[in-house]
Amino acid sequence: MPKDLKLPFDPIARAGDLWRARWGEGSQAGPMVTATSIMRVQQVLLTEFDAIAGRHGLTFARYEALVLLAFSREGRLSMGRIGERLMVHPTSATNIVQRLAAQGFVERVANPRDRRGAFAVITDTGRAAMEATTADLERAEFGLGMLGDGEQEALFSLLRAVRVAAGDFVDDVDEPAREHPG
Amino acid sequence: MPKDLKLPFDPIARAGDLWRARWGEGSQAGPMVTATSIMRVQQVLLTEFDAIAGRHGLTFARYEALVLLAFSREGRLSMGRIGERLMVHPTSATNIVQRLAAQGFVERVANPRDRRGAFAVITDTGRAAMEATTADLERAEFGLGMLGDGEQEALFSLLRAVRVAAGDFVDDVDEPAREHPG
Repeated sequence: MPKDLKLPFDPIARAGDLWRARWGEGSQAGPMVTATSIMRVQQVLLTEFDAIAGRHGLTFARYEALVLLAFSREGRLSMGRIGERLMVHPTSATNIVQRLAAQGFVERVANPRDRRGAFAVITDTGRAAMEATTADLERAEFGLGMLGDGEQEALFSLLRAVRVAAGDFVDDVDEPAREHPG
Repeated sequence: MPKDLKLPFDPIARAGDLWRARWGEGSQAGPMVTATSIMRVQQVLLTEFDAIAGRHGLTFARYEALVLLAFSREGRLSMGRIGERLMVHPTSATNIVQRLAAQGFVERVANPRDRRGAFAVITDTGRAAMEATTADLERAEFGLGMLGDGEQEALFSLLRAVRVAAGDFVDDVDEPAREHPG
């Protein structure tokens, strides 16, 4: 992953110029550069978060699973629920939990209601790794310290429309708009 | 990947509430939910783009490599340059080109200036697959049709600040601000 390319031009804006030159003024150069920006910023953030989580023996994906378990009522969740909440494929959820179990950050216990299923339970060392990673992510302002509170709220709100359109949740118009917890 | 979860609440906003309840009002719940939104929207877009590219035998990553080659002056680039422009690890660039070569979408030719290096050259069938994918992505408005032009520009501009802070390019204050090609 290149770091600090410091190009003398914005590579995504330039790609937009090339796009318009090739496919015309009526082409979707605007949506193209915006979508490409989302992908690039996701890559920037994930690289930073993985590096932070890596200091505590985690990846960001495994950290997210630990947060989920720590936030759950009894510190345990079924594999299916973990995949659902993390919005990842069940196979990915299984891989994440297997890795966490190998590290001693979770334990797997039988699910009394489902013989084939299993619960993942967060351990004390898992909680410690999660808390330490959280402290470092908070210090790093989740990679978004260059944006003011109003800008973060605007970004959250614009992205929220994409999540609603994707069917992640129902945007209930009778409810007052959710506030950004900035 | 869950599609149309249609939860009766915004799962990311709820995670923000839990975050604040656990780590306090002074915690970085705002940046946390904004960063999480970026990751979720990237996942939504990539899933859609991979499905579109899949109709033409491609993934979005392989499509991006074909666009890069088609946009290059002679329809060919060195492996190193491909990795650099796609902002991916050289190993990923090699894997992408190997796969495209196996499909007949690119050909690999020796680099006269570097015996160990190689150029990737886009083939006619590669160009056809790229053009067909482009047409479908344009029709899908790059997954961002729910946002108006002004909203897309605002989103691009907010994300641009993150890319500048990451060192992707130098934001020359003497230059007039680049316009979003919306």
